[in-house]
Amino acid sequence: MDMTEKTTSSRLVYDGRVVHLYVDGVSLPNGVASTREYIRHIGAVCVLAVNDRGEVVLERQYRYPFHKVLIEIPAGKLDTPGEDPREAALRELREETGIVPRKMELLGEYYGSPAILGERIWMFLATGFESGGARHLDEDEMLEVFTMPLDEAARAVLAGEIPDGKTQAAILRGYYRFQQQK
Amino acid sequence: MDMTEKTTSSRLVYDGRVVHLYVDGVSLPNGVASTREYIRHIGAVCVLAVNDRGEVVLERQYRYPFHKVLIEIPAGKLDTPGEDPREAALRELREETGIVPRKMELLGEYYGSPAILGERIWMFLATGFESGGARHLDEDEMLEVFTMPLDEAARAVLAGEIPDGKTQAAILRGYYRFQQQK
Repeated sequence: MDMTEKTTSSRLVYDGRVVHLYVDGVSLPNGVASTREYIRHIGAVCVLAVNDRGEVVLERQYRYPFHKVLIEIPAGKLDTPGEDPREAALRELREETGIVPRKMELLGEYYGSPAILGERIWMFLATGFESGGARHLDEDEMLEVFTMPLDEAARAVLAGEIPDGKTQAAILRGYYRFQQQK
Repeated sequence: MDMTEKTTSSRLVYDGRVVHLYVDGVSLPNGVASTREYIRHIGAVCVLAVNDRGEVVLERQYRYPFHKVLIEIPAGKLDTPGEDPREAALRELREETGIVPRKMELLGEYYGSPAILGERIWMFLATGFESGGARHLDEDEMLEVFTMPLDEAARAVLAGEIPDGKTQAAILRGYYRFQQQK
């Protein structure tokens, strides 16, 4: 069945630094008129970085919308809409952890909340490194970097202890991949 | 280290049907002043529903921010801020698929994009059912329901064929749980 929603109007209601909020009028396939509120976003990357000892690199970061510190894998926005996601992944990993991996593989895309958030996140697996070096964080970026054995991280995800979605998906995807290689 | 970001101002810039966009002024632990653009959301649930034949219940739904049809597990917003997530999960699963499971377990929380989206999604595992019944969709809701063996769904996630984040996380979490029970 054709599920296409046709745009009848589009209004930019807030054009922010990160968030660009639109309210579009749409015509549904059944003819019903409705509206869609959604965020346009430049796009982002996240990186499951697993070192030569089988440990995953994680970050503790304060997330204002939840007013608490969350555990997440390294991630960040593209610098420009056309930036190569692999370059962005290498940059963000280097800036946040100082790590320069020998291998950076695309695992696939991740859409965190596709009904309202048009943010496309490219998920990568970084391997072939021992430890990090110097970091270069943005002025409004404060984070603690630490490592955890990948199997322990997978247990934490399965126990419901890591609410960040991209971190749940990336850790389990990486864990399964390393299991297959054993 | 204390990572708390103190609110110095808060402005509701758009108060929509689903999206409530705020721009807050914050004071970072290092004293730097910054702003946070974020969405407040009533909260939601998603359900990994696995029938007695080991098949997961999936939906094809048009997602306007990406202008394409995505494959996702059943999900929906809370009716009220105080609604019991389990009740919401049972309602959404019944409305979208007609399924009434004998068991509905909380797997944990899922935050799809915690830097900008304050949407808290409770993730459930529904088991103990054979097939669905009558559906009751919202007027602006059009979706196709289908089933797939859980191990095939896990392979599709690992192959990067399912971009929706909650669906990636839920399928792999369910897959590991059923593997452990074998």
